[in-house]
Amino acid sequence: MTALIGIDWGTTSFRAWRMGQGGEVLEEVGDGPGILAASALPGGFGQALRDRIGLWMDGTPVIASGMITSRNGWVETPYLPLPLDAASLARSLTLHDGIHFVTGAVSDPDGPAPDVMRGEETEIIGHLAGGGGDGLFVLPGTHSKWAWAEGGRLVAFRTVMTGEVFGALRDHTILGRLVQPGPGSGDAFRRGVEAGRQDGALLGRIFSARTLALMDRLPPDQIADYLSGLLIGDEVAHGLRDASGPVTIIGRGDLAARYQTAFAVLGISADVAPPGMARRGLWDIALKGGLT
Amino acid sequence: MTALIGIDWGTTSFRAWRMGQGGEVLEEVGDGPGILAASALPGGFGQALRDRIGLWMDGTPVIASGMITSRNGWVETPYLPLPLDAASLARSLTLHDGIHFVTGAVSDPDGPAPDVMRGEETEIIGHLAGGGGDGLFVLPGTHSKWAWAEGGRLVAFRTVMTGEVFGALRDHTILGRLVQPGPGSGDAFRRGVEAGRQDGALLGRIFSARTLALMDRLPPDQIADYLSGLLIGDEVAHGLRDASGPVTIIGRGDLAARYQTAFAVLGISADVAPPGMARRGLWDIALKGGLT
Repeated sequence: MTALIGIDWGTTSFRAWRMGQGGEVLEEVGDGPGILAASALPGGFGQALRDRIGLWMDGTPVIASGMITSRNGWVETPYLPLPLDAASLARSLTLHDGIHFVTGAVSDPDGPAPDVMRGEETEIIGHLAGGGGDGLFVLPGTHSKWAWAEGGRLVAFRTVMTGEVFGALRDHTILGRLVQPGPGSGDAFRRGVEAGRQDGALLGRIFSARTLALMDRLPPDQIADYLSGLLIGDEVAHGLRDASGPVTIIGRGDLAARYQTAFAVLGISADVAPPGMARRGLWDIALKGGLT
Repeated sequence: MTALIGIDWGTTSFRAWRMGQGGEVLEEVGDGPGILAASALPGGFGQALRDRIGLWMDGTPVIASGMITSRNGWVETPYLPLPLDAASLARSLTLHDGIHFVTGAVSDPDGPAPDVMRGEETEIIGHLAGGGGDGLFVLPGTHSKWAWAEGGRLVAFRTVMTGEVFGALRDHTILGRLVQPGPGSGDAFRRGVEAGRQDGALLGRIFSARTLALMDRLPPDQIADYLSGLLIGDEVAHGLRDASGPVTIIGRGDLAARYQTAFAVLGISADVAPPGMARRGLWDIALKGGLT
């Protein structure tokens, strides 16, 4: 018997779970349209939902998190200030078109560098609900999120645009001019991390990706891995200055492995969280909100 | 009577001077083809030269500096190691097709972050030859150069890709999504410099160009100036950590003014060098080399 339907709905991704009485997964859909694609459908978000999980929707409560609550989403909800936990997110659920939307979080809204997230807060809640302790959480991606939890609450976070800047540098600056595709080089990545962890202007240090190649000291099929390491190394070295407690990476595949390697180069053992943090967070927020 | 023809020949620019017995300018050409355009001509660099200054070339010595001595230039010349001065550059002139080419400089060739320049060394020599003292030189551009002179010699430098990265971020990342053109805002630029001088990962701090705009705290027509200030502020704050002695900006127009403003925000009074440093450097190197 279905107790809850959970949806993690991002800009370019859609994942949904049909969950049973204990939050266990009864069924899963992983390839629905992100909000960019869904909003372009004739029937919009509602149609996207019916197309993908219409058969599940028999009155079972539905909870959704992610960029779906942003300005370009189904309904724009106000950001929740820090600190926050599952209970405060549950109190802030927005019921719209029959769906309970989890809102995002804002950090330092009136300060010189406000920051926002939508979706990652639910993944972190999922980790905390699963018995994960406090500490530092890193969620790699186009825009990485660094988040700190204390006393079971999310107390601080910041966004680092590493993934998107890497793409822009590789595809739209002189640094990509000599790049050739390759099988992937862990050595080049680690060498980049060593360059990235150094002091000095980042916009200066990245130039070594060109000069080393010009001087035949970096093979063309290793430039991209070196540059990736350099940017992630800079990110991790800066982030660790504020670190205390255990470090947990919430992410998957190659990107999570790259961050784990970068932490290792800097002498830190970081765990990669098991998959399912978003679903677990949705379940916990729904429980706290009395939806199930 | 013409004593020397000097050429500053860059990737996208070509400037030439016909100089008299005392190095004074008798005639000037400022709009010739850069090496990218010149190399595509049927007659190549020789044709570009004849087209622009053929009437000057009556046996008068010709000296040229800049990217024209790079791999994609007229002749590739080896980089000169540091420290260097006008005399060592004069000893390293390469005579090719009747032209005396000034070679570029390399910093830390065997270290983890080698760096190179072609053309800027001649501008710095020009400043030193004109009676300018030692200190820090900043040459803003697509790739800024920071250079240090001691005892009349160029002793260190590094490249910072600020200009090119600014363009890539504005045109190819989410930071440019909300940008609207505007009349230019000195306040937004200075606000960016304040954000740029702070500690923390640069790839995190740039995200404020988006969040401030999302929160209606940065008008769309000020985002670009804010981001420009943020990148230049980061560059200047890092560069000043190694600074001692006077700071001289070798550059022109709006970009030189932006750097001067950024230094002022950080409490440093930087001079902008008078125009003509490249020509002056070419003259001094030619003198030391016995060309005139």
